Amino acid sequence: MYQKVLNDIYKEINSQIGKGKVADYIPALKNADASQFGISVRTITGEQSNLGDFEHLFSIQSISKVFTLTMAFQLLGDVLWRRVGKEPSGNPFNSLIQLERENGIPRNPFINAGALVVTDILISLLENPKKELIEFIKQLSDSENIHYDPVIAQSEREHGYANAALVNYMKSHGNIQNDVDQVLDLYFHQCSILMNCQQLSSAFLYLANHGINPHNNQKILTQSQAKRLNAVMLSCGLYDQAGDYAYLVGLPGKSGVAGGISAIMPSQLSITVWSPALNRHGNSHAGLKALELFTTKTGISIF
Amino acid sequence: MYQKVLNDIYKEINSQIGKGKVADYIPALKNADASQFGISVRTITGEQSNLGDFEHLFSIQSISKVFTLTMAFQLLGDVLWRRVGKEPSGNPFNSLIQLERENGIPRNPFINAGALVVTDILISLLENPKKELIEFIKQLSDSENIHYDPVIAQSEREHGYANAALVNYMKSHGNIQNDVDQVLDLYFHQCSILMNCQQLSSAFLYLANHGINPHNNQKILTQSQAKRLNAVMLSCGLYDQAGDYAYLVGLPGKSGVAGGISAIMPSQLSITVWSPALNRHGNSHAGLKALELFTTKTGISIF
Amino acid sequence: MYQKVLNDIYKEINSQIGKGKVADYIPALKNADASQFGISVRTITGEQSNLGDFEHLFSIQSISKVFTLTMAFQLLGDVLWRRVGKEPSGNPFNSLIQLERENGIPRNPFINAGALVVTDILISLLENPKKELIEFIKQLSDSENIHYDPVIAQSEREHGYANAALVNYMKSHGNIQNDVDQVLDLYFHQCSILMNCQQLSSAFLYLANHGINPHNNQKILTQSQAKRLNAVMLSCGLYDQAGDYAYLVGLPGKSGVAGGISAIMPSQLSITVWSPALNRHGNSHAGLKALELFTTKTGISIF
Amino acid sequence: MYQKVLNDIYKEINSQIGKGKVADYIPALKNADASQFGISVRTITGEQSNLGDFEHLFSIQSISKVFTLTMAFQLLGDVLWRRVGKEPSGNPFNSLIQLERENGIPRNPFINAGALVVTDILISLLENPKKELIEFIKQLSDSENIHYDPVIAQSEREHGYANAALVNYMKSHGNIQNDVDQVLDLYFHQCSILMNCQQLSSAFLYLANHGINPHNNQKILTQSQAKRLNAVMLSCGLYDQAGDYAYLVGLPGKSGVAGGISAIMPSQLSITVWSPALNRHGNSHAGLKALELFTTKTGISIF
Repeated sequence: MYQKVLNDIYKEINSQIGKGKVADYIPALKNADASQFGISVRTITGEQSNLGDFEHLFSIQSISKVFTLTMAFQLLGDVLWRRVGKEPSGNPFNSLIQLERENGIPRNPFINAGALVVTDILISLLENPKKELIEFIKQLSDSENIHYDPVIAQSEREHGYANAALVNYMKSHGNIQNDVDQVLDLYFHQCSILMNCQQLSSAFLYLANHGINPHNNQKILTQSQAKRLNAVMLSCGLYDQAGDYAYLVGLPGKSGVAGGISAIMPSQLSITVWSPALNRHGNSHAGLKALELFTTKTGISIF
Repeated sequence: MYQKVLNDIYKEINSQIGKGKVADYIPALKNADASQFGISVRTITGEQSNLGDFEHLFSIQSISKVFTLTMAFQLLGDVLWRRVGKEPSGNPFNSLIQLERENGIPRNPFINAGALVVTDILISLLENPKKELIEFIKQLSDSENIHYDPVIAQSEREHGYANAALVNYMKSHGNIQNDVDQVLDLYFHQCSILMNCQQLSSAFLYLANHGINPHNNQKILTQSQAKRLNAVMLSCGLYDQAGDYAYLVGLPGKSGVAGGISAIMPSQLSITVWSPALNRHGNSHAGLKALELFTTKTGISIF
Repeated sequence: MYQKVLNDIYKEINSQIGKGKVADYIPALKNADASQFGISVRTITGEQSNLGDFEHLFSIQSISKVFTLTMAFQLLGDVLWRRVGKEPSGNPFNSLIQLERENGIPRNPFINAGALVVTDILISLLENPKKELIEFIKQLSDSENIHYDPVIAQSEREHGYANAALVNYMKSHGNIQNDVDQVLDLYFHQCSILMNCQQLSSAFLYLANHGINPHNNQKILTQSQAKRLNAVMLSCGLYDQAGDYAYLVGLPGKSGVAGGISAIMPSQLSITVWSPALNRHGNSHAGLKALELFTTKTGISIF
Repeated sequence: MYQKVLNDIYKEINSQIGKGKVADYIPALKNADASQFGISVRTITGEQSNLGDFEHLFSIQSISKVFTLTMAFQLLGDVLWRRVGKEPSGNPFNSLIQLERENGIPRNPFINAGALVVTDILISLLENPKKELIEFIKQLSDSENIHYDPVIAQSEREHGYANAALVNYMKSHGNIQNDVDQVLDLYFHQCSILMNCQQLSSAFLYLANHGINPHNNQKILTQSQAKRLNAVMLSCGLYDQAGDYAYLVGLPGKSGVAGGISAIMPSQLSITVWSPALNRHGNSHAGLKALELFTTKTGISIF
């Protein structure tokens, strides 16, 4: 259905692929091939269109924050927002400053500090959070082939001092309940989860489908909760580029530092793009261009 | 069409009307009657439903920023964004700090600093900006009865030191081209424009109607520009409560300190609520509750 | 008495003179000859040693803040500190941010915001502040030849938007009592006062002499007040380089953007250096080097 | 020599003792008896005057930063300042914000972040830092009876998340070279060192004596280094109250959260006061009053 659009996009942005800079803060990411590019669209009625390296596995990194937030939102409902805000951080030199001003309550669940609080909540509420998270994503993506990458998780750990600073700081304000190392361990594992564009598009469909997982008709979130999570994604999903992204793309979405971006159009579809080279905001350069072209060419937009 | 919904909303929020605090930074506002409440819905096909004090005139204050931004966007297109950003400010103690860090480029056109830059642009580009702005709003609202309130404008001027600080500061960074007093004069006048819920709902319809003024079929903005302006409204329209508003209401909108809030649902309708008592973020308390109920009861949401 | 030391200093720093950048924010300053250098030492017993361009007149700029502060301190005593702090600002990207956080109370009287409050106080308390300020400095410096430079004052005014922002902002917080333009007018005039190294050294002697003007034995400040004003100078006199200056020089002092620096050693002497080229903190590069050498060679230090 | 002055001070401030709030962030501190008060003066010629609970042991806490800084300054000289600044932080809501803005380089060695860098330096350079630090303080204080308090050190560790955040954050910027836990362990130990007023006054004498330990005539620092360390103490020794302290007391000094404050007058004496109840800046309330009275009554001041 969208295959022609994807082909056209590919032609137009070919020269943009590889522009930017592959994430290099851990060895496991810096060897990514910047010339790779994949895209996958999936509608709530089950059709799909794919292109390029859509089957290539990459670590989902911050895209995992959508899944952990969904689990915590399921478990706690609006009580969740007592421990994390839902306002954009609007701050390129970022979370630590606001965290100090706001006494250890992170701005939103999509900056690292907020995601770490969500991870802490899962540790408190789940018996085996690592296992349950993977099972949850398997169901969402209708795929058994979802795994943690222990090498990436370990590499994140070894270079994870900034995140350790955040957890310790929030714990000093009483906003982390579990052991610092335990929180970091789950967090680095969730970042390391390997998925491809196709799996991610499948996994995001519940957000386009008013909270219902279309693969098994299970209710993941209420309709109202799904709407609200989409609103938070739109406002906060792309760090300090959130406004620019809403302006150019106009779909709720979430990016990761390995180059993936997943977005949804309510009642219609989900789309995932992947290309490892990042712009200065830490979002995939070619991925953003592809999403912008997709909404321009199809006229799809929430606005 | 929406009359029953409005009636139901009115019953449910009756006890909320008057909660909060009427703006008192200028004498001309502090005498507003906190028990007043009006609401007006207008569809792009011309139907309308109204309730309460929907014909009562109030100063539109920051809602005027949507009209001046539209004029500047018409005239300059994307070049506009060289002088003002489109990211949420995310900062309750706000614009001055970010203005300093970001060298006089305001975060977005809906915080005061950004609106003052937009006002400066209109002064540079229009022959008689005060007259042309009123004419523009008359056409949008399909009403001849739109005027500046000279008493409010004068009162704003007399207490406008914070805005004078912003203009002077941006001028010290080269981001204001005209005389400081001239910029402030137009700005305080645009804030003083008197409209009622019905007029505002009519005036916002072009944003729901893909940039076309439905009253005369004139193109105000391109379809893409209308989408983009809506995106900026959603991200930035309610100051540091923008995320909360997107979460609870889920419609692009803009609030003013006299208690008005105008919002739109693309392809469908515009809605304006008004009630003078404000919450601690400076947005109408009962107005927000009414908008939240409206989207809950109708299921209308961009998400 | 110190002539040999001055001669030695001159030889050693000859190669440093002209390094840095002459202030260019107003036309009246940017034409200064960067190769100029003067120094003047004066003891409380009346001896003096001079060197180089010590008779060349330059605008004292922020050094004037010491004189206006002294007048306000005379008039108000410790009540003064209700309207301005005495803590270092420690902030290179500076005063506006702290002013916002601290509700319009400037950190100290030596940053612009604080000096503007002091100027506002003089306007409230003096009949003819412009005339009385000049008379005060004439007495301190034991010289009739002290004047405002109307060209510099006018040039400051024309480029004074950042200072206008500060005054407006503080007025919005109620910390400016007089008309904005009146405050700016006196402030720009005090900055424009023309003096040379010899006059400034004479004028600072009361701070070395426990508050007594040694030229006429008049009590300017009590002994305790003189000590306290010296303490504020040491902590805050050289902007965000105050700590570095205390470390390297170790004498209470105040710099100006035209390249002058005046400092005192309690019970002994005052010293003024002047050279127009500034380091990145806005302090005279060669002047600071000269002061550092002076304290090293003489062993004079408060520490 | 100063006994009468101390007796007079005691009478005058009797009513102030116990005002304020004993530190309660760790159990080991919160049981301190707020009614205790001790003072000890020691001249470089060996005379001493004492009063009250001058022999009562308390944990020196942040006063230890002077000793570790001295050791690092001995070892590295001015190279030290590549890793830590010497400007006042001027920031009540403090170090984390500036640390982020300034890329992990702390403002000065007397805020926690800066002291942690100094501790890291000692770990890198000393074979057995814990032992060598205690030995160093024993020599300075001319006392064998100096020990770590393992209960306090452990208690600090258990509540040390804010400091763990700082170390992790600086390590993420490359400004910590050793293991995070090792740095924290030494830091919490140095804070736990038990001393009394008499020992501290003895130990600070080298700073009044131009770098020479008067007990054994050993050179601890060069004369220039001693001057410079005193300058940093004056600018930065009392956190965000440094300016106020310089104004009121006018002697280089350092405070600790257990209620001790040590200060020196160059070429003359050192003085230590102790009283556990703190003002809102975390400095001993009665201690500060006592120091202010001491300088007022004796006329001693560096200014």
